[in-house]
Amino acid sequence: MKLFLDCLPCLHRQVLEAARIATADETCQARILDRAVGVLARCSEFSCAPELAKAMHEIVREETGIRDPYRAIKRRELDSALALEPRLWDFVGGADDQLERALTVSATGNIMDAALTPDLDITACVSTELDTTFARCDVAALRRDVAGARQILVIADNSGEAVFDKPLLHVLGAGREVRYAVRDAPILNDCTLDEALYAGVGAHATMLSSGSSAPGTVLDNCTPEFLEAFRAADVVISKGQGNFESLSDPTPRPMYFLLKAKCAMIARRLDCTLGDYVFQRRGPEPQAADR
Amino acid sequence: MKLFLDCLPCLHRQVLEAARIATADETCQARILDRAVGVLARCSEFSCAPELAKAMHEIVREETGIRDPYRAIKRRELDSALALEPRLWDFVGGADDQLERALTVSATGNIMDAALTPDLDITACVSTELDTTFARCDVAALRRDVAGARQILVIADNSGEAVFDKPLLHVLGAGREVRYAVRDAPILNDCTLDEALYAGVGAHATMLSSGSSAPGTVLDNCTPEFLEAFRAADVVISKGQGNFESLSDPTPRPMYFLLKAKCAMIARRLDCTLGDYVFQRRGPEPQAADR
Repeated sequence: MKLFLDCLPCLHRQVLEAARIATADETCQARILDRAVGVLARCSEFSCAPELAKAMHEIVREETGIRDPYRAIKRRELDSALALEPRLWDFVGGADDQLERALTVSATGNIMDAALTPDLDITACVSTELDTTFARCDVAALRRDVAGARQILVIADNSGEAVFDKPLLHVLGAGREVRYAVRDAPILNDCTLDEALYAGVGAHATMLSSGSSAPGTVLDNCTPEFLEAFRAADVVISKGQGNFESLSDPTPRPMYFLLKAKCAMIARRLDCTLGDYVFQRRGPEPQAADR
Repeated sequence: MKLFLDCLPCLHRQVLEAARIATADETCQARILDRAVGVLARCSEFSCAPELAKAMHEIVREETGIRDPYRAIKRRELDSALALEPRLWDFVGGADDQLERALTVSATGNIMDAALTPDLDITACVSTELDTTFARCDVAALRRDVAGARQILVIADNSGEAVFDKPLLHVLGAGREVRYAVRDAPILNDCTLDEALYAGVGAHATMLSSGSSAPGTVLDNCTPEFLEAFRAADVVISKGQGNFESLSDPTPRPMYFLLKAKCAMIARRLDCTLGDYVFQRRGPEPQAADR
């Protein structure tokens, strides 16, 4: 999905936030912002916002020497999410339609976005969020696709969100192989192997790195192993805005996008309202011959 | 007041907003943003945020040929303010302390800021805002300074705000000469001579251009006439953030700043909380020999 003009000031603000998380040295923050503006000036060279974000956050790492500025934030989010975990399982387990409930929980986890809502109190807002219904929910299509599926791939987004994905991985995993793809290296508060392990995803899915260290899944940078998993999966579910931005335009294969529309541009692309939850299938409908 | 790092993404966002107000042509918007990033890269050349903002908004004018992109917005704000005007005069006229009430009304007008809150509905929020008390109000000092004053200068900020300044100009004007300084040329929704006239300021003060066409008062760009008025006035009251940013560090003479702290950086400088109203005297205390 191409970069919107709105992405530029937003990424500009994000990199300042990241600089301040990484260092209290204002001279260093100014140097980071200075170099970041240089990258913004070359924005036409980037295919999508996550790729541009990656280049900008690399500056933070280079200038501060800190490989993972969001480490403490991710840990805090994970701990908050883990404290909530029993409620999430109860919410799913007590339902007639566990698949739809698990999608709701997974979507709710998508609110933990350090780039857009760094001060979010997940514990305070989880009840309201779980009560929110999807503006669009292609669960019927998912049920159809999952029925004959052997391999399912879920592409992770933020760290704390991984805890919220566990019930979905569990429900999808009945009699099927489920994989959970994470970022290759730390970027913002996105989920890497470390966070997926800490979240306890291993009990419900096989974890793999996508190879991408952008806050999204830029296929050109992905590993052959991930590309093969992406190709071979009967069902692919992509979580969050960053994956949507890098995988939706064009959508390289039939797949599902599960996210909260956290900015006006994404909402416009999803034909929904800012703040809506969406579970949307994109790409060509399966033909009888494909099954 | 020096530029904060936070000013950069904020001005970046503002110029995109201005570009969209001026033109629906996305190629032109992209060209504006492209050139604006070039100006942001030279941010160290600018003495304060209003000077940088001026350079960025000049790009909008150059690329679109539209001299005053905010014209319709200013007119709408002025008409909303004029519709509220009887309430404002009642609020001041019914009080024992008309000076303090007039300061409150004038401060309330400062919420009409197209740069920071473009979709504000002034009619909906005016009652709440008028009830808000100042976090700091140096009205006692003003009363002392005004008592012996012959000339008073008020430096205007936004367009609709001019209507809210009228009761203050009226109260200050009892037996004194009051001047109202406006921007020299259109910039954002700031008040120029056209808007001051439309607001009806002429009934209560002599209007003059400051010579500055930045959204602030950059003394180096001001006219000799304004500089003389600024020097000669017994009391100077500066409205809004843009004037505060350009006149407060250093404060070139004893003067008053009347504003709502609409961003975290300004709040920090004013030692108040974001959203607070402040009426603050800055600069050296008057000596007996000066009076």
